Amino acid sequence: MPLPAPLSPLIVDDLVRMALKEDLGRAGDITAQATIPANREARAVFRAREPGVVAGTAFIEAAFRLVGFGTMTMIHKTDGSRIEKGDIIAEVNGTGRTILSGERVALNFLGRLSGIATETARYVAEVQHTRASIVCTRKTTPGLRAIEKYAVRCGGGMNHRFGLDDAILIKDNHIAVAGGVKPALEAARAHAGHLVKIEIEVDDLDQLEAVLATGLADVVMLDNMPPAMLAEGVRRVAGQIKVEASGGVRLDTVRAIAESGVDMISVGALTHSVKVLDIGLDIDM
Amino acid sequence: MPLPAPLSPLIVDDLVRMALKEDLGRAGDITAQATIPANREARAVFRAREPGVVAGTAFIEAAFRLVGFGTMTMIHKTDGSRIEKGDIIAEVNGTGRTILSGERVALNFLGRLSGIATETARYVAEVQHTRASIVCTRKTTPGLRAIEKYAVRCGGGMNHRFGLDDAILIKDNHIAVAGGVKPALEAARAHAGHLVKIEIEVDDLDQLEAVLATGLADVVMLDNMPPAMLAEGVRRVAGQIKVEASGGVRLDTVRAIAESGVDMISVGALTHSVKVLDIGLDIDM
Amino acid sequence: MPLPAPLSPLIVDDLVRMALKEDLGRAGDITAQATIPANREARAVFRAREPGVVAGTAFIEAAFRLVGFGTMTMIHKTDGSRIEKGDIIAEVNGTGRTILSGERVALNFLGRLSGIATETARYVAEVQHTRASIVCTRKTTPGLRAIEKYAVRCGGGMNHRFGLDDAILIKDNHIAVAGGVKPALEAARAHAGHLVKIEIEVDDLDQLEAVLATGLADVVMLDNMPPAMLAEGVRRVAGQIKVEASGGVRLDTVRAIAESGVDMISVGALTHSVKVLDIGLDIDM
Amino acid sequence: MPLPAPLSPLIVDDLVRMALKEDLGRAGDITAQATIPANREARAVFRAREPGVVAGTAFIEAAFRLVGFGTMTMIHKTDGSRIEKGDIIAEVNGTGRTILSGERVALNFLGRLSGIATETARYVAEVQHTRASIVCTRKTTPGLRAIEKYAVRCGGGMNHRFGLDDAILIKDNHIAVAGGVKPALEAARAHAGHLVKIEIEVDDLDQLEAVLATGLADVVMLDNMPPAMLAEGVRRVAGQIKVEASGGVRLDTVRAIAESGVDMISVGALTHSVKVLDIGLDIDM
Amino acid sequence: MPLPAPLSPLIVDDLVRMALKEDLGRAGDITAQATIPANREARAVFRAREPGVVAGTAFIEAAFRLVGFGTMTMIHKTDGSRIEKGDIIAEVNGTGRTILSGERVALNFLGRLSGIATETARYVAEVQHTRASIVCTRKTTPGLRAIEKYAVRCGGGMNHRFGLDDAILIKDNHIAVAGGVKPALEAARAHAGHLVKIEIEVDDLDQLEAVLATGLADVVMLDNMPPAMLAEGVRRVAGQIKVEASGGVRLDTVRAIAESGVDMISVGALTHSVKVLDIGLDIDM
Amino acid sequence: MPLPAPLSPLIVDDLVRMALKEDLGRAGDITAQATIPANREARAVFRAREPGVVAGTAFIEAAFRLVGFGTMTMIHKTDGSRIEKGDIIAEVNGTGRTILSGERVALNFLGRLSGIATETARYVAEVQHTRASIVCTRKTTPGLRAIEKYAVRCGGGMNHRFGLDDAILIKDNHIAVAGGVKPALEAARAHAGHLVKIEIEVDDLDQLEAVLATGLADVVMLDNMPPAMLAEGVRRVAGQIKVEASGGVRLDTVRAIAESGVDMISVGALTHSVKVLDIGLDIDM
Repeated sequence: MPLPAPLSPLIVDDLVRMALKEDLGRAGDITAQATIPANREARAVFRAREPGVVAGTAFIEAAFRLVGFGTMTMIHKTDGSRIEKGDIIAEVNGTGRTILSGERVALNFLGRLSGIATETARYVAEVQHTRASIVCTRKTTPGLRAIEKYAVRCGGGMNHRFGLDDAILIKDNHIAVAGGVKPALEAARAHAGHLVKIEIEVDDLDQLEAVLATGLADVVMLDNMPPAMLAEGVRRVAGQIKVEASGGVRLDTVRAIAESGVDMISVGALTHSVKVLDIGLDIDM
Repeated sequence: MPLPAPLSPLIVDDLVRMALKEDLGRAGDITAQATIPANREARAVFRAREPGVVAGTAFIEAAFRLVGFGTMTMIHKTDGSRIEKGDIIAEVNGTGRTILSGERVALNFLGRLSGIATETARYVAEVQHTRASIVCTRKTTPGLRAIEKYAVRCGGGMNHRFGLDDAILIKDNHIAVAGGVKPALEAARAHAGHLVKIEIEVDDLDQLEAVLATGLADVVMLDNMPPAMLAEGVRRVAGQIKVEASGGVRLDTVRAIAESGVDMISVGALTHSVKVLDIGLDIDM
Repeated sequence: MPLPAPLSPLIVDDLVRMALKEDLGRAGDITAQATIPANREARAVFRAREPGVVAGTAFIEAAFRLVGFGTMTMIHKTDGSRIEKGDIIAEVNGTGRTILSGERVALNFLGRLSGIATETARYVAEVQHTRASIVCTRKTTPGLRAIEKYAVRCGGGMNHRFGLDDAILIKDNHIAVAGGVKPALEAARAHAGHLVKIEIEVDDLDQLEAVLATGLADVVMLDNMPPAMLAEGVRRVAGQIKVEASGGVRLDTVRAIAESGVDMISVGALTHSVKVLDIGLDIDM
Repeated sequence: MPLPAPLSPLIVDDLVRMALKEDLGRAGDITAQATIPANREARAVFRAREPGVVAGTAFIEAAFRLVGFGTMTMIHKTDGSRIEKGDIIAEVNGTGRTILSGERVALNFLGRLSGIATETARYVAEVQHTRASIVCTRKTTPGLRAIEKYAVRCGGGMNHRFGLDDAILIKDNHIAVAGGVKPALEAARAHAGHLVKIEIEVDDLDQLEAVLATGLADVVMLDNMPPAMLAEGVRRVAGQIKVEASGGVRLDTVRAIAESGVDMISVGALTHSVKVLDIGLDIDM
Repeated sequence: MPLPAPLSPLIVDDLVRMALKEDLGRAGDITAQATIPANREARAVFRAREPGVVAGTAFIEAAFRLVGFGTMTMIHKTDGSRIEKGDIIAEVNGTGRTILSGERVALNFLGRLSGIATETARYVAEVQHTRASIVCTRKTTPGLRAIEKYAVRCGGGMNHRFGLDDAILIKDNHIAVAGGVKPALEAARAHAGHLVKIEIEVDDLDQLEAVLATGLADVVMLDNMPPAMLAEGVRRVAGQIKVEASGGVRLDTVRAIAESGVDMISVGALTHSVKVLDIGLDIDM
Repeated sequence: MPLPAPLSPLIVDDLVRMALKEDLGRAGDITAQATIPANREARAVFRAREPGVVAGTAFIEAAFRLVGFGTMTMIHKTDGSRIEKGDIIAEVNGTGRTILSGERVALNFLGRLSGIATETARYVAEVQHTRASIVCTRKTTPGLRAIEKYAVRCGGGMNHRFGLDDAILIKDNHIAVAGGVKPALEAARAHAGHLVKIEIEVDDLDQLEAVLATGLADVVMLDNMPPAMLAEGVRRVAGQIKVEASGGVRLDTVRAIAESGVDMISVGALTHSVKVLDIGLDIDM
């Protein structure tokens, strides 16, 4: 799979600037100021302490550039690369103060995004013999959605909606208020621009039939169904529209779900319950 | 333990406004616009789907207030409360569109903060028979540090530094560059204001002795030591200064660490690897 | 046609705050300060000086609320309403200073958005006997895209992409670099999430055939074709995908274009060359 | 006439950054990401598709610099230059992705500002045999006032007030509340700093006499008067203060107005009803 | 003299929000959180500890409103009022935490602005038997210019330029580069809009004659001249234009300067060297 | 004493950008635009007009870099240096327009911060034969706290709290509500993190005894006591905790206070009543 396109520097720099201000506060890194001479040079390497998939290296360069004065960053493992324990991800040369003051911000981004990429890659590996792709959700960290979805792509996953505004996703409440699957889809189609897709969530196969009968949906989400029912759903859809499986997917259940023949499996845990990838910074001053 | 003081509305509103813009994008919630009549009223309850400790209810009120038009929120379980599966945390009355459009933002904050509070409470329960308190670290989500540290307090934990500027924490690199424990502490004391505390990390008991000999540290961090060595460290410190244990602490190891007699145990995972608390929104339109 | 959903107060308030700061500068409305006593009450009505379609009334309320102290706004003509010369659009009661200081900002938004809605409605009227809808483009005023696209909806039009990120639109340069229509569409499909639609621009009917042969596009844009060629294109597409006509569309050519049977006609001039609707504020102090 | 001083980079960069975020959204230019290889180089020229006066070239450089990675822009026609159909305004070298992703933002600024400069130049040409200068108003696009007024200068026009705070302009409502021309002017003079000029609007020649009798105004605005009455007004003013003509000025009426001998003619349409100048980007990849 | 028009709530709220964030940091007022029960009510009065002129009471209301929860502020002495030692300026009722947490921000604004107003009033008192008004300069605190100039008005002074953009002020360097007083004034007049005044600084009476000979200046600034030379300058100007005296003006020299007959005397120290007015907050809990 | 660590470029650039926008307004430096040719080169030196201690040179470089185009700044006197009348602090080479447009902003920062450093150095000189250090307070200019506290360090002083969140400072109201010194200190200790110090203010020696009896305070503030009582307080504390003297300290009283043996003396006037250091810019064009 091709690597994802790099993040916009507009996004990376804004986030790093915000994170540095949060960490440096009003007085800055008073420990480094007290104990490290201003002109002391240092070299540091970001090293993986466990295997995984790397994501977020742009934040390393930005953190050290924005914290201060004349640092040089070299990326050894680009985003999307598999890394083993002990691998060097990036190397930084600059003043000791700059490196120590930017370290935590760089690691907070890198560890989180690499954690997402790594977990995504685990799900992707489970389903690679099927047609299913792994997709994320809107259950992301407030403020970090764009970069968390980028990390999912680094791990081999695909992205669902980025927000409430870029596709229509009709759920149970919408259906109930609209008066059923058909009126809900008709209202959606009347409202939607010509480049807006419509997905609809169904809870059972009768609802699925109702959706198919309208011919108005681009994607159907089969919510919380066991693999056998998913397979029956896929059979009935018969390739007319895309099929997404959703609801409480775990690493130990995703394979069976994928083997039902669905096109996409959405996994909220990829972003709502991130386990950081353990990456350390070894500094040589 | 007393409940933590409420979060500043300045912080809550800024974060919610940012998250709503991230989710609503340029076109807003096009699904609700298409399928829900503007004047349709609804009532919704936030309900726990697993037991835990709640944190972040201020974000519920703010999300619905800022998304739009005339909502009323009633909090049933205040921050810091233990909740059981099925408990109602809060109830919202307003238009259906407002509730559907603000739902994800409210849940993203509430689930994450409650997840932190719940996990913190698990660690606190393990050590409650000892003198040790559970403290968090700077391994927080960029942009959310203030509220994640608040969630730790909701779970019964205490906070470590909020940033690089509010206390001095001397680590191995600082010691190495300064030329040893003594010169590092002397430089720190000369630089620090009279309301700034100094903590220093040591890797073995010889370093600990060197620290104690200076009489300049307020806290010592015993890094990555087994419980027996921690106990010996505590014995040597003999109450002169506070003792923090640090390094790879897990829920199944924290009890033994606490029983060594240390004053604080810092747990990075509380904030760097959050498992969201499962909370759902049941809507009645 | 149903009226468009109201603009988010988050967007309206941010824009009005920005515009008020731009107009009030550092010293505020020094004319009103000098000549109008602080407690002088006034009543003012926004009155149409030419017929049209109104859009942007939310900016009236926000401008007077944010400029100062205790104003009350009543909207008489909601967004999307047709208005005749002399019609009262809204009425404001408050202090004379507030009304005079907020007048220009309110009118700058209201006139521009109503101008867009009115011009859109003219195009829509020309094509209402056909299947074609009128859509806008990304040729919008920097900073005002969301509200200009909203004004298009108020005039009965539909929206094209809101940005580079919410759908794929393959143009001549993309095709050339990708090596043809087929590889371009394949790359797009491989990259696109399952809720992202793909549109492709073609310059002649051979290219159209190539597009149809792939079965990968959701929409085809027939660029700069005369009505007869458009009709032939529509015939060949035969309803398999949506067809958009584009390129130099004017009010005196849109009818013939629509009668070719296309689904959408995009008109850049709706937003890139706005003629303000003439609306005045009559103040009674 | 000398060219206007260049826009402040503080203003240009802020506006471009805002516009790029608006256009790139959360996911960026997904079309270019999918179809253009990251290292593909390209060259592009901004070419006039109709004659006019150019304004806003600083936005070209800024758009490509801020969108990404290593672009070089060369301006061939500086702001204020007359251009003919086919003229090259600027040339850009860089990666294809950068050029395609920044294109629309650059064009949206350049086309709008050049449209304003071109229309201004038309008015200026009509009155160049007279003493009258063409001035703009506060009827500008929210957020773009500084650059729209700059474009007016590029077209040979002059600027009126930039905001409510940099001069006093007494209109009918102020006069009515203050109790007449004389008390209004006295209040204004008492309130105004020594570097603040005072202009007053009059509707008939009696009011004009009243203004002249006070000796307190720097400028008088003759509102909505036919050329003959303007000429009589100019005669009565006899050079004591400046005279501005205002109200519904059009390209086909401005000459007669100017020949009345007024000093300034204000034209709201220069900025409230902008027709974009047609400029295209020819890309060679 | 009439009181100055109130500050825009847009300016006051932005500044207070910024100041509260600066003071509350990431963790908020930890002293009040620890020692004051959440529901404890309190009453507090702002009381003058020395006589002076009050300015900035809007910041009291805003500070307590924005810091938190349900406070009520009553202003007893409006801006511009003379106060004696012991006078109550304002009274606040609310929770003790809110009052203690907002106290410093409220006082920092109120004390500084009242200090400026008080010092201005001292200068104004010295010159009240003359025609001279006291004006401030651009030597203001970064970020606070609008409110510091407002405080000068509260003290009975007038404002000079608010920024580099709202009037032309030609100084020695401009004259030197332009090639003399005449070409500098001609360039200024050609460039200036019709509502922009021109002031020029002169160092001796020959330069003054050169200025008067052009008839192009609205104001002349006599820089660093002794009273006798000022009086001669005033004699030569003979009321044709306004005359400003400038340069190292002190409270003990301002009277003699004013008696020379100048129109304005500018005093940088009013804002560049502020002595805070001593105001205390007496809290009753 | 070692020089303070340099200010973060994140802080300097944000403040300078804000100040430049405040000064340049919407139209920029219209005087320089009118009278100085765009390509005119100039050289300027910042020269002390009175002796003092310099602080804030980073703002010189930033002001000219951000205002425009290609300036080069060389600092001759680094922050913390003593300067004599006539000394050159920095030299700038660039276009005349850039230098004239950035001059006031650079001077406003440099003069204020150098004024603070100079006044601090005067206090420090008075007490250098004692153990006392001079510390600032939270009575700072809104928005400038970080840099004003930096200037205090440049003058040889030390910093007190940076905000309400980085240490606990218990004052009379807290004590009263908490029910006495002991319960207040116990509440504070229970609430405070392990890196948070606690200071408590006392008004008499009985209260001091009560504080000492608890063993819970890190610092005691002796408020408004005459030197003899301070000395008695120091004797009773006997080195157990730090002692701060506070309250109406002036340059002519600080020596006697220091000789009482206290550790710190806090002086609000250092930042709340700043006298700018007189620094001029000599320009050679």
